[in-house]
Amino acid sequence: MSRAFNFSAGPATLPQSVLEQAQAEMLDWHGVGASIVELSHRGPEFIQVATQAEADLRALMAIPDDYAVLFLGGGATTVQALLPLNFAAPGQAADYVLTGHWGKTAIKQAKPYVDAKVIASSEAGGFRDIPARASWQPTADAAYVHITANETIHGVEFRDIPDTGNVPLVADFSSSIASEPLDVSKFGVIYAGAQKNLGPVGITVVIIRRDLLERAGQPRADILDYRSHVKGESMLNTPPSWNWYLLGLTVKWMLDEGGVEEFARRNARKAALLYDVIDSSGGYYRNEVATAVRSRMNVPFFLHDEALDKPFLKEADAARLISLKGHRALGGMRASIYNAMSEAGVQALADFMRDFQTRHG
Amino acid sequence: MSRAFNFSAGPATLPQSVLEQAQAEMLDWHGVGASIVELSHRGPEFIQVATQAEADLRALMAIPDDYAVLFLGGGATTVQALLPLNFAAPGQAADYVLTGHWGKTAIKQAKPYVDAKVIASSEAGGFRDIPARASWQPTADAAYVHITANETIHGVEFRDIPDTGNVPLVADFSSSIASEPLDVSKFGVIYAGAQKNLGPVGITVVIIRRDLLERAGQPRADILDYRSHVKGESMLNTPPSWNWYLLGLTVKWMLDEGGVEEFARRNARKAALLYDVIDSSGGYYRNEVATAVRSRMNVPFFLHDEALDKPFLKEADAARLISLKGHRALGGMRASIYNAMSEAGVQALADFMRDFQTRHG
Repeated sequence: MSRAFNFSAGPATLPQSVLEQAQAEMLDWHGVGASIVELSHRGPEFIQVATQAEADLRALMAIPDDYAVLFLGGGATTVQALLPLNFAAPGQAADYVLTGHWGKTAIKQAKPYVDAKVIASSEAGGFRDIPARASWQPTADAAYVHITANETIHGVEFRDIPDTGNVPLVADFSSSIASEPLDVSKFGVIYAGAQKNLGPVGITVVIIRRDLLERAGQPRADILDYRSHVKGESMLNTPPSWNWYLLGLTVKWMLDEGGVEEFARRNARKAALLYDVIDSSGGYYRNEVATAVRSRMNVPFFLHDEALDKPFLKEADAARLISLKGHRALGGMRASIYNAMSEAGVQALADFMRDFQTRHG
Repeated sequence: MSRAFNFSAGPATLPQSVLEQAQAEMLDWHGVGASIVELSHRGPEFIQVATQAEADLRALMAIPDDYAVLFLGGGATTVQALLPLNFAAPGQAADYVLTGHWGKTAIKQAKPYVDAKVIASSEAGGFRDIPARASWQPTADAAYVHITANETIHGVEFRDIPDTGNVPLVADFSSSIASEPLDVSKFGVIYAGAQKNLGPVGITVVIIRRDLLERAGQPRADILDYRSHVKGESMLNTPPSWNWYLLGLTVKWMLDEGGVEEFARRNARKAALLYDVIDSSGGYYRNEVATAVRSRMNVPFFLHDEALDKPFLKEADAARLISLKGHRALGGMRASIYNAMSEAGVQALADFMRDFQTRHG
C-alpha cells in the first residue's frame, strides 16, 4: 500500500489518519459489535457521532447560535434548487453574481422558481476575474444575492465578503469552506458539498441564519422544506450517516491540527508554491486568473504546448501525483489543494513541474 | 473485535465480507494510491465501480432494458416528492394504497403537487392487514397507483403484485427490494433506500420504466427532474460515490451467494423461525399482523407484559443481539432480518426468545 498525492477536485483527498480510523472502526464501532454504517441513525451511538460533528463544525467555523446547521444528502446542486423554494416568493427577483461554471448551475436550478437576475458577470472575460462590488447592479427587493465563494473549475475566489446591505448574502462555499477564518454573521446562507474541504462525498452542509426560516417561500414538499429539516435536526428521513461520521472525523482532525487559522496559513503557503512555479516558468506554465482573485484551493494551469499534456499527466502519475487533469470544460491541468492536501504533496508537485519543464523545455 | 447480531431496521447489518473488503481497500483502492471515497466520480476508477454496480443490480433483479436505473442521494422520502413532480400533471389525481407509516409519508410528500387519493387503507384496523385488491376504488385517469411493498414499522408486506391495469404501479420497496424474485415489468417505478437490503445508507435506487420519462410532469428544477438524472447517468451532480461502491459490493455478494432465488429461500426460513417462536409462545409473545401479509423482513412483536421490555432488551444486548427495540410509533420489539442477516443470527434470536420466556415465564 502506497498512498499517492491526490489532486482530485472532489471527491478529494482525505487525511490519512481519518481513513485509518474509519478503517479500524469499519467492522466494530467502539465495541458495539457493528459498524457505524450499520447502526440506526436514531440510536444513541449515531446521535453521539452526529451531535459531536455539529459541535465540532460550529467550533471550527465559529458559527453563531442564531444559525442552524444542516447535514443533508443531495449535494450542493439540490441546495441551489431549494434556495428559491425556501427563501423567495414565487416570481420574486433573486440576484446572482456569475463568476464561473458553478454560478451558472446555481442560476439554472433557481430559474423555475425565481426571476434570477445576473447583476454582475465575468463571463465575457472567460471567468478570469471577479466583478468589483461597485459595478454590481442590485435589484431592489431581491430575495437574496448569490455568489460562488470559490469557483472550482475556473479557479477564481472571492477574497473579500461583499457588502449586500439588508439583502441576505447566500454563498456556495463547496470548495473553500473552512479553509480560512470566515465571519459567518455576514451571510444569510452558507452551503457546501463536503467532498472537498470537509471530508467525504455524499453529504452537504447548509448553514442558515434562523430568521430566514420565517420566510414563507413557495409551495413545496416537506422534504424540500428547510424548516422541517431544522425541526427534525437533519433526520427528517434517514441521513447519510456514514458520510456524516467521516465528516465528523475530518472536522475533528482540523481542530486538532490547529483550526482554520492554521489551515489559512498552510493553504496560503501551498497556493504560493504553485503560483510561483507557474509565474516563474517564463510562460511554460500559464494561469490566466487575475492575481488578486486567484483561488487558494484550485489551481488551473495550462502547458504552453497542448502536445505536452499527455506526457505531463503520464509522468505525474508515475511520480504518484494523481488526478491532475483539468475539468473537461476548460482543459489543461488543475491541482486541487484543499485542507487535507499536505504541504509535502504540493512541494512534490512543484518540484515535479520544475523538473518536467527542464526535461521537456 | 466481536460482531453482534444486529437487527436494526435500517441502517442495517451488512455482510461481514463486504465490510472486510471495504476495510482492506479503505486507504488504497486497487493500487491507485487513494481510497475510492477520494477519487473523482468522473474518473475511470469510479466509472468502473458504478457501471459494474448497475450491471450487477440489473442481473440480480432481472431489470429489463426498458427500465432506467438511478443511484441518487436524498433518500426514499425525496423520491416520494419527485414522483408527482415528474409523473403527474399539476392537480391530477394519484392513487395511494395506505398500509402503514411509510405510505402516510408518501402521501404527505405528494400532497403539494397532486390530488392524492387514498383508494384503500388498513389504518382503521391499526395497519395489521392489506386491503384486498377487489376493495380498492381506483380513480379514473390517476397518474399512478402507489403502494408500500413492505411497511418497515408495521411489518405488513404485499405478497402479490396488485393488477392496476393501464395505470402505472409505483412501489416503495425500501425494506424488501431484492429479497425474492420480482417481475419488474409489472411496475412503473420501483424505488428503495439502500440501507436495508442493498447495503449502505446514503444512496437510493430508482428504477423507472422509460416511457414514463416522456410525461411532462410539473415545473421543476433540473436536479429534481428524473429525465436529467437518466441523461446524466446519475451524475448530474456528484453522486454519493462511496455509498454506491458499498452498494456494488453488497449486490455482488448477493449474486455470489446465489441471487434472489436463494435469498427468497433463506428469508422465508428466517421469518418462519421467528413467527413460529411467537405463535407457539402461548401469548407470551404477540404479533398482530394478518398471517397472509406478515412481513418476511421486519417482525414486530410485543411481550405479554410491557414491564418485561426492559429486561428483554438488556439481556438481548448482553447476548450480543442488538437493535431490537421497536419503532417509537409502535413500541414493543422489532427484529429486522434483511438479506444480510444470517440464519445463524435469527436462530440465535429464536433461541434467546424461548430461553427468555422460560426464565421469565
